[in-house]
Amino acid sequence: MTRYQHLANLLAERIEQGLYRHGEKLPSVRSLSQQHGVSISTVQQAYQTLEMRQLITPQPRSGYFVAPRKAQPPVPPMSRPVQRPVEITQWDQVLDMLEGHHDSSIVPFSSGIPDVSQPSLKPLWRELSRVAQHNLKSVLGYDQLPGSRELRQQIARLMLDSGSVIDADDIVITSGSQSAMSLALLTVCQPGDIVAIESPAYYGTMQLLRGLGIKVIEIPTDSDTGISIEALELALEQWPIKGVILVPNCNNPLGFIMPEARKRAVLSLAQRHDIVIFEDDVYGELATEYPRPRTIHSWDIDGRVILCSSLTKSVAPGLRVGWAVPGRYHDKLLHMKYAVIGTNVPATQLAAAAFIREGHYHRHVRRMRQIYQRNMEIFTCWAQEYFPCGICVTRPKGGFMLWVELPEQVDMVCVARQLCRLKIQVAPGSLFSASGKYRNCVRINCALAPDEKHREVMQKLGNAIKVAMT
Amino acid sequence: MTRYQHLANLLAERIEQGLYRHGEKLPSVRSLSQQHGVSISTVQQAYQTLEMRQLITPQPRSGYFVAPRKAQPPVPPMSRPVQRPVEITQWDQVLDMLEGHHDSSIVPFSSGIPDVSQPSLKPLWRELSRVAQHNLKSVLGYDQLPGSRELRQQIARLMLDSGSVIDADDIVITSGSQSAMSLALLTVCQPGDIVAIESPAYYGTMQLLRGLGIKVIEIPTDSDTGISIEALELALEQWPIKGVILVPNCNNPLGFIMPEARKRAVLSLAQRHDIVIFEDDVYGELATEYPRPRTIHSWDIDGRVILCSSLTKSVAPGLRVGWAVPGRYHDKLLHMKYAVIGTNVPATQLAAAAFIREGHYHRHVRRMRQIYQRNMEIFTCWAQEYFPCGICVTRPKGGFMLWVELPEQVDMVCVARQLCRLKIQVAPGSLFSASGKYRNCVRINCALAPDEKHREVMQKLGNAIKVAMT
Repeated sequence: MTRYQHLANLLAERIEQGLYRHGEKLPSVRSLSQQHGVSISTVQQAYQTLEMRQLITPQPRSGYFVAPRKAQPPVPPMSRPVQRPVEITQWDQVLDMLEGHHDSSIVPFSSGIPDVSQPSLKPLWRELSRVAQHNLKSVLGYDQLPGSRELRQQIARLMLDSGSVIDADDIVITSGSQSAMSLALLTVCQPGDIVAIESPAYYGTMQLLRGLGIKVIEIPTDSDTGISIEALELALEQWPIKGVILVPNCNNPLGFIMPEARKRAVLSLAQRHDIVIFEDDVYGELATEYPRPRTIHSWDIDGRVILCSSLTKSVAPGLRVGWAVPGRYHDKLLHMKYAVIGTNVPATQLAAAAFIREGHYHRHVRRMRQIYQRNMEIFTCWAQEYFPCGICVTRPKGGFMLWVELPEQVDMVCVARQLCRLKIQVAPGSLFSASGKYRNCVRINCALAPDEKHREVMQKLGNAIKVAMT
Repeated sequence: MTRYQHLANLLAERIEQGLYRHGEKLPSVRSLSQQHGVSISTVQQAYQTLEMRQLITPQPRSGYFVAPRKAQPPVPPMSRPVQRPVEITQWDQVLDMLEGHHDSSIVPFSSGIPDVSQPSLKPLWRELSRVAQHNLKSVLGYDQLPGSRELRQQIARLMLDSGSVIDADDIVITSGSQSAMSLALLTVCQPGDIVAIESPAYYGTMQLLRGLGIKVIEIPTDSDTGISIEALELALEQWPIKGVILVPNCNNPLGFIMPEARKRAVLSLAQRHDIVIFEDDVYGELATEYPRPRTIHSWDIDGRVILCSSLTKSVAPGLRVGWAVPGRYHDKLLHMKYAVIGTNVPATQLAAAAFIREGHYHRHVRRMRQIYQRNMEIFTCWAQEYFPCGICVTRPKGGFMLWVELPEQVDMVCVARQLCRLKIQVAPGSLFSASGKYRNCVRINCALAPDEKHREVMQKLGNAIKVAMT
């Protein structure tokens, strides 16, 4: 951490502790510089950081003041999607968005790309380079079908923190959690089957269901406690549902962590109705709380939970290291992996295993949790500042996504189209619904550094929304 | 090339040219050593190499003689599989085999693993290590959905040699040809559909069809000219067939190259019956003939051929770099890639692109064609020497697989089980049939160096077969 960041954090803490009250004048730049033995410019940078985080405000010719306390915006209410199976469309919009992510002139507020610029990832590419030089035969040859044993051992160890006690042999390595989920669905479902999903739900999962010809039924979901167990039960009574896809930890896009009681309740519901739970834990390691939240899988006693996860969000997408813990479906899923995908790249698996084994993984994840949490706070402040009144914003318990609900009349699909011309990409809420709901919502990727450029983008986004309201 | 290899090749050429006749005595070790200015041990090594290649035979106390000319064994006749759609099983046997490949105490005659120990692959891992060090952002971030543009450009250039004139935008990178084929099948077929295949056909493709719930109809296939177009036509008239999977260049397992006239005939048949051709070209670059044989895709005018290929056999499996050229199915297949797999590993793609761009690819493939061709000659000699009379052996036009047909009464499934105890794995022919045919056949991987150990394994295999006949 640089000096100015250290100083900024110190001051932020004092403000939070009430040592500096809201509206109170802060020490002058000169006096802070003398007091902490740092340069004038360090203090100025620290103050600018705090200003960006909206903790302090500058008053021309009189210095910095602690910002007045603002009420946090309310969180979005429980969703109310259509209660019948539907087919998914909107692939064109997703494709446009994906193409934008590789145009460096576009600001990708829409993406799910984590921050891979942090120095705590340096050991990873050192390992990758080392692996390429020293493990010639393993790097060029075929991988084992279930994936590198060493990596599976490391993952089994990591997963203890989530309460899931498993063996390396229970794990099937995949090329990311998307491919883990696709193998799980191919293993359990046929085209035409119905699967229940949270509403809103990650658009990648929905496109997967579309690709496999699976119908979905969207279940009302609370932005604080997750899927409505009552609504899910009702749906299970009405429709021949094969399983339910859940992101119970640091949900994408809502950011909630399901309370343990509700996790257990949904599992016992699945047992009563004999359905499969497809549990996506890809953001679970980025939870702010310590110890990290438990998986539903950790209470599973009859192998009906297929846990899917990856290092994509917690480490780096380019590794393409994900995994499935398929419980009673292990053998069938392993066959499906052989049939549909084949084996995975050994080099990135070996590098990932070394990265975890040598302790770099835990250091990196600890760091990223803090960074993302702060980023989300700053983006929330900006939303409050630049977006119209009456918005609701989620208070994510981890991950790096904000979900903003705007006044009813705002059509984010239109706004997104306009912003494209300004080289700004946002993900309109309708992508997260099979039935085209949430057109007045937007998901914002807060893995992007909250710098001056992104503040301006938030301002432009706010302006575009305000125009759309009139 | 080392000195002894150089000398061995020189002597082999002279034998082929008839300068040394069959049965004639060769110069003594001492005189050759003086003549060529090399050490005694170099000459001895050269003679041992030629002996292993069965070009010369030692006579105790009188030196080396040119081996008597042997009639080559006949090739297997046209296959005659059951002519109705069937479902595929035998996954347990495939799984056992796959597990064996990672046990270094087992000799994997059964595998399809290419030789990755050649020095011409050194530039590849140098590139991989360089990529890891210098392309940080691209290596850790998400790849483009269709795959690295640079790699697609290189592949488009490579494919010109096969007559397929395509653009980088026509290519979708996958994690190997298995995953290219699976995306192609997922794009075109539904569970319950019928697809025609060559008989015998690669067991990986058959397990893929099984995984996706697709039925197959096996079409008689000639070990010299490929699939019977007449039989295919008959099947198309009788059954609602969606497409046909063909490996027309250096077929696995039969090694044939379909003559151009037959390639065009099968394409026009596909046009008449409006079916898709799934063309697997994974061994095409390893054809002995120059220029390399054309793809069926190269004559396709209405986008009905989905070409699937990879660098797995020609370069290294560990790259996990394959591709599909999906013609009219491009957009649907790209969606399927996003849905089912997601993006691929950038690091190995960038290394592969550099390997091709810098000319290392062509050097390596030229070298491997020669090595594999010689290996197959040596393994054929061994089969003739150690296997019972009355065998048929394919004369592969490329790749590195031999297919041996044994007398009717030999059950290679039983023989394979016995050989397991001797730590030898062979692929019984029945794995290559959906209806359990070819139990008296065996496929042998000739990518393995034909050294003393492998000669002994061939001898043991021959003995086990002879025992099975009695």
